[in-house]
Amino acid sequence: MNWATKTDFYEITMLQAALDSGMANKKATFELFTRSLPEGRGYGVVAGVSRAIDAVMNFCFSDDDLNFLAMQPNIKQSTIDFLKDYRFSGSIYSYRDGDVYFPYSPIMRVEGTFAEAVLLETVLLSIMNHDSAIASAASRMSHVRNGFRQKVSLIEMGSRRTHEDSAVSAALAAYIAGFDATSNIEAAKLYGIPLRGTSAHAFTLLHENEKDAFRHQVDSLGVDTSLLVDTYDTKTGINNAIEVAGVGLGGIRIDSGNPVVESFKARLQLDELGAYGTRIILSSDMDEYSIKELVDAYAPIDAIGVGTRLVTGSGAPTASMVYKLVEVEDDNGNMKPVAKKSSGKSSIGGSKFPYREYSNGKISGEFFSDSPEKSNIQVQFISRGLKISTYSPQDSRDFHKLVMNTLPDGITQLISTSTMKAVKND
Amino acid sequence: MNWATKTDFYEITMLQAALDSGMANKKATFELFTRSLPEGRGYGVVAGVSRAIDAVMNFCFSDDDLNFLAMQPNIKQSTIDFLKDYRFSGSIYSYRDGDVYFPYSPIMRVEGTFAEAVLLETVLLSIMNHDSAIASAASRMSHVRNGFRQKVSLIEMGSRRTHEDSAVSAALAAYIAGFDATSNIEAAKLYGIPLRGTSAHAFTLLHENEKDAFRHQVDSLGVDTSLLVDTYDTKTGINNAIEVAGVGLGGIRIDSGNPVVESFKARLQLDELGAYGTRIILSSDMDEYSIKELVDAYAPIDAIGVGTRLVTGSGAPTASMVYKLVEVEDDNGNMKPVAKKSSGKSSIGGSKFPYREYSNGKISGEFFSDSPEKSNIQVQFISRGLKISTYSPQDSRDFHKLVMNTLPDGITQLISTSTMKAVKND
Repeated sequence: MNWATKTDFYEITMLQAALDSGMANKKATFELFTRSLPEGRGYGVVAGVSRAIDAVMNFCFSDDDLNFLAMQPNIKQSTIDFLKDYRFSGSIYSYRDGDVYFPYSPIMRVEGTFAEAVLLETVLLSIMNHDSAIASAASRMSHVRNGFRQKVSLIEMGSRRTHEDSAVSAALAAYIAGFDATSNIEAAKLYGIPLRGTSAHAFTLLHENEKDAFRHQVDSLGVDTSLLVDTYDTKTGINNAIEVAGVGLGGIRIDSGNPVVESFKARLQLDELGAYGTRIILSSDMDEYSIKELVDAYAPIDAIGVGTRLVTGSGAPTASMVYKLVEVEDDNGNMKPVAKKSSGKSSIGGSKFPYREYSNGKISGEFFSDSPEKSNIQVQFISRGLKISTYSPQDSRDFHKLVMNTLPDGITQLISTSTMKAVKND
Repeated sequence: MNWATKTDFYEITMLQAALDSGMANKKATFELFTRSLPEGRGYGVVAGVSRAIDAVMNFCFSDDDLNFLAMQPNIKQSTIDFLKDYRFSGSIYSYRDGDVYFPYSPIMRVEGTFAEAVLLETVLLSIMNHDSAIASAASRMSHVRNGFRQKVSLIEMGSRRTHEDSAVSAALAAYIAGFDATSNIEAAKLYGIPLRGTSAHAFTLLHENEKDAFRHQVDSLGVDTSLLVDTYDTKTGINNAIEVAGVGLGGIRIDSGNPVVESFKARLQLDELGAYGTRIILSSDMDEYSIKELVDAYAPIDAIGVGTRLVTGSGAPTASMVYKLVEVEDDNGNMKPVAKKSSGKSSIGGSKFPYREYSNGKISGEFFSDSPEKSNIQVQFISRGLKISTYSPQDSRDFHKLVMNTLPDGITQLISTSTMKAVKND
């Protein structure tokens, strides 16, 4: 995996100018945070940290990369020499995958020299902005889903609607935020996410008639498979499915029509046929709002497949996080807070050590101070260039469940009725 | 690059059922198209074809992949054996990268056996949906930009706001659709896109004061560099920039404030200082609408950096393309049209050979017939498993310019006043 060139060229030019000015080796601290959440949302979900830490540990330039950079106008050999030996040797502290964040939460803090920390900007932001956007959307869908009285699984099936590599990361982010399975083979293989898949309309269309298609699918994949019943007509499809598979059929999938109406009609029909245990899976343009409609209607369903709206962040395809220099070593070797003042984009200088306070088990506020004393949110992931913490996708998923229980109700509503913002505790 | 596992598991289960039912080797045709464009848009731009063709040519399963699939419930050895030998041996016809498309344009046609063609669904859709979404947004920005009376360059700088691998593909899609440069090193290296980059606020904050930072940047990168002038106060920043670099300074970049206002103020100030040739680069939350405002105001700018809104498709992060089986071999060896009838998601059966008709050099209509006679849009990219056509990013970019000249004016407006739809010519 070539991480080092998935970066903006201005990091190289800044590095060169800093090398020439003698400032490159000054100690520096960068922080990653967002100034706002998408409209109506009360919280975001951190994801991508594990991937980001791996990217940092593997961030180095190949000879090929260096040759390419050396050909760019005004790039000097001293810059190339620095990049050739580059390995991050600083420290990284971060909120964990599965944790929540608010505006100004200091999600990640990178400590090192200016040179080594500035080079990581693009790759850290790319990973965190993408993965957190998906996890934030997934958490909303998962949280709404918890309103069902029956067990309803969420299956990520959006690979086709996003970049082929984003798809793999999206499946991981969704799993962390509460999804139960994925359709993406690579994600299942890499991250141990349960894998799901049955058939598409094409399989039905391939055969002489629907019954033939169903019969062959059941013969090949067993009676616990799910049959896609809406290629021609859903009612006939369900009749055909039970006629072919018997009342022990595992499930039916409906991929069109109004989800509430279709689920009730299907349940009634299945029960009338005696297929009481046959599960209903819906998969047509679902998102947190359509899931909420199903919850409110007490819809009798067993699983929901979510595609487009999940992998595009349900209206917020990026988490809008930024990476800012917050302090730098002065000539006496002391760390000095710095902040820009651009209109509408000002930042707060100094290292921020975040902590949460709780009341009756719920978060009552998120704060940061300039001393680490009360700090209870960040974990140190890298210490002087060595990776010292690792969490599995399952760890992060479990952690997300715990954290969600600490959020006040208003914050988790689809249109949040209360807000929170990380604030400086003076 | 591992293409084969970036796929939905249901393609494997469908394959297995088709192998078991004896239908797997039936000849089949799949088509890739969209049913609609994002609201208010009159056209979409095809991108991703070159990447998709490369994915098909390199689509094969490693031993590791096969071992993983063999462990899944109900997956048989016969399925694994088929996948082990998998190489696409059919043909692919497609619109070219840089071409435009409309609802129901048959953008890509895949001919092969059902088994070999069904396996490609996810990877083809992932690539085409992502890259075409970005190219469609980029083309709108580029087309609006053409309204400036002066030369204004568009620089893609969105890497940080999208998945690290999407970023590289997004830079390519943007270049095809008219962008002039990218900030992404990997994209420049892979695709030969001009590379741009100077410095961020962090570089200014690193130094004792702004003048020091500017001086060091100019010393290191030459006087043709662009200085970022809005870390503290834009007016002071511009004075500092010219004081340090002289009137021969290459450019200034402004990353905050109202673009129209800032550009006029900056031009006036630069001219007063005698820096008539110093370019102005704007890079704050730009998209086609803010570019249009600049055009309408005759804003005196030289380059625009576009980030978030470009790489997230400017409101439409996916192109909503689908991949549908349209014909399959019957028992007599004849190709038979097939189509699903699901409510709201029905498709049109049969192979579609698309062509355009022109009037005064502008497209008057896009049609498809069931015979290839008039076909004048698609190119054959793969013939019996062999790649037979290649276009460079520059070819596709040139082609996009030509095609844009054939679009009626109403279709290219930001809120399109006329629409087009590919229709069957009976």
